[in-house]
Amino acid sequence: MLVTAGRAVLFTDGRYRAQAREEVKAAKTVIVGKAPVLAAGEWLAENRKVFHRGQVAVGVEGEHLTVAAQKRLKAELSATFRLKASPSLIENARMVKDTAEIELIRASVEAGAGLFDTALATIRPGVTEIDVAAAMEFEARRRGAEGMSFETIIASGARSALPHGRASRQQIPPDGFVVCDFGVILRGYCSDRTRTVYVGSASNGARAFYGAVLDAQQAAIAAIKAGVTCDEVDEAARKVLLNNKLERYFTHSTGHGVGLEIHEGPRVAAGQLQMLEPGMVITIEPGAYIPGQWGVRIEDVVVVTATGCEVLTPSQKEFIEV
Amino acid sequence: MLVTAGRAVLFTDGRYRAQAREEVKAAKTVIVGKAPVLAAGEWLAENRKVFHRGQVAVGVEGEHLTVAAQKRLKAELSATFRLKASPSLIENARMVKDTAEIELIRASVEAGAGLFDTALATIRPGVTEIDVAAAMEFEARRRGAEGMSFETIIASGARSALPHGRASRQQIPPDGFVVCDFGVILRGYCSDRTRTVYVGSASNGARAFYGAVLDAQQAAIAAIKAGVTCDEVDEAARKVLLNNKLERYFTHSTGHGVGLEIHEGPRVAAGQLQMLEPGMVITIEPGAYIPGQWGVRIEDVVVVTATGCEVLTPSQKEFIEV
Repeated sequence: MLVTAGRAVLFTDGRYRAQAREEVKAAKTVIVGKAPVLAAGEWLAENRKVFHRGQVAVGVEGEHLTVAAQKRLKAELSATFRLKASPSLIENARMVKDTAEIELIRASVEAGAGLFDTALATIRPGVTEIDVAAAMEFEARRRGAEGMSFETIIASGARSALPHGRASRQQIPPDGFVVCDFGVILRGYCSDRTRTVYVGSASNGARAFYGAVLDAQQAAIAAIKAGVTCDEVDEAARKVLLNNKLERYFTHSTGHGVGLEIHEGPRVAAGQLQMLEPGMVITIEPGAYIPGQWGVRIEDVVVVTATGCEVLTPSQKEFIEV
Repeated sequence: MLVTAGRAVLFTDGRYRAQAREEVKAAKTVIVGKAPVLAAGEWLAENRKVFHRGQVAVGVEGEHLTVAAQKRLKAELSATFRLKASPSLIENARMVKDTAEIELIRASVEAGAGLFDTALATIRPGVTEIDVAAAMEFEARRRGAEGMSFETIIASGARSALPHGRASRQQIPPDGFVVCDFGVILRGYCSDRTRTVYVGSASNGARAFYGAVLDAQQAAIAAIKAGVTCDEVDEAARKVLLNNKLERYFTHSTGHGVGLEIHEGPRVAAGQLQMLEPGMVITIEPGAYIPGQWGVRIEDVVVVTATGCEVLTPSQKEFIEV
């Protein structure tokens, strides 16, 4: 998409002709036979006269355009045009959701949350992780989802210590945690939720471990309100795990924005000075992972408000034995 | 991953510690707390003495590194290091598959092909496109797939004219084509297949339209052998559609490489002078789409050989009425 002071032009290829006609309202669509970014460059070169004299700065989305594509684009353009990585205009605009978007995310989170009931009905010793994921994904489709927002994570036994343990052919062992991290895409918007259950009879140690992660999650949620920095929210979770001597097992950040994409701004992580604003939608998902032994993660999606936050479908966080 | 003359170092974060220990054999893994690409830059700066005097050229993967990431990487490095977009070394190496890879792709294609039987058992007037996709995706999981290799396309009625018509909430109408384009990921390797069926009683026009696309697909397959260019294969399909006065409705390229990713090199498209080599694995998927009316696409995965090609599971291409 090329945006000038006076117009917006979307370049796409013949595969998307009918779809563009249906969906694109605020831009002119041009169907092209070459790479769209090069077609945009050609359009610029041909419409040189539209612009003021002298050099014209062309902002590109630096977080998306590859080095190679930029090089090809440069070759299309005369010295009149100067490419410049623009700040993250789109990303920043998308961090704060409007009311209609929040309702769509709420619907997606509610549809996604229900898959945990499917997981609870499926998780048994001897069932493979993939079988659990399959049942959940089928249920997602039944609820009208366009698809999953990321590859379903079902990580059982010692695999629960893998923060990104996508469902494998491993059978769920008779004793241990099972981390379930899953989300759907519904009308374009993503959901994201993690629940961790215990298969078998949990020791006090397992319960205490789970309790520490849950406390960390609640502390982070309690820290959220407009004007607080992402770093402060992350710190609230980290501090609880530190007090439980588990801080070094919390190996990722506390959360991320979610919306049209599963990972959007802001990053809820140490050192992130981005301030929370009403309408931001973020995940809160601390975890702790002891390699070779076990792991727990608990995650909700929340909407930031002026005075705190709303947790979308906060249920089912009590300790569950299957 | 940073590769020097003497060593290879993979930079990743704490989430992948256990997975890297399991999977990474040929490189040293370094777990870092910052963006891996910046950690690689820092490593270079600190290990300056490893390299010869004078300026050191650092090749980056231009088709993957973003403009913004390159800028951040540059800021880590002193003037001693000069970044340079390297040619597509990895992409080119991956175009030709070895015997073990071909067997993995064959298994993935065979598992994926079977989903069409599920589609045939599910497609009925009044059933939603998403219902069909859900049944296929469940079957994919049942066959052990890690997931789908792309969002399942079920495009019925006038939507069959959308080359990328992902399964929607639309009910399958009582009369018309249904394009089913689907693939699975099995042990890391992708499959990709398209079959188009007719719901209801097809007119001679519909049969002739289907026949033209099938002829185009067979002509492209017949044109394949080592030493032929991708352009020539594309041209073989296009020529058949031209003879049927359908060339302007064939709005995409004939195919693409497939392997660890669903879209790899080579591109089987007009103007692509890349020569086919034994062991390349490509899709052959011509289609024709009349906006508002109907569309047909037929796709197989083939392995290029010295004298021709092997079509993996070529069955079920006859005209099927449901």
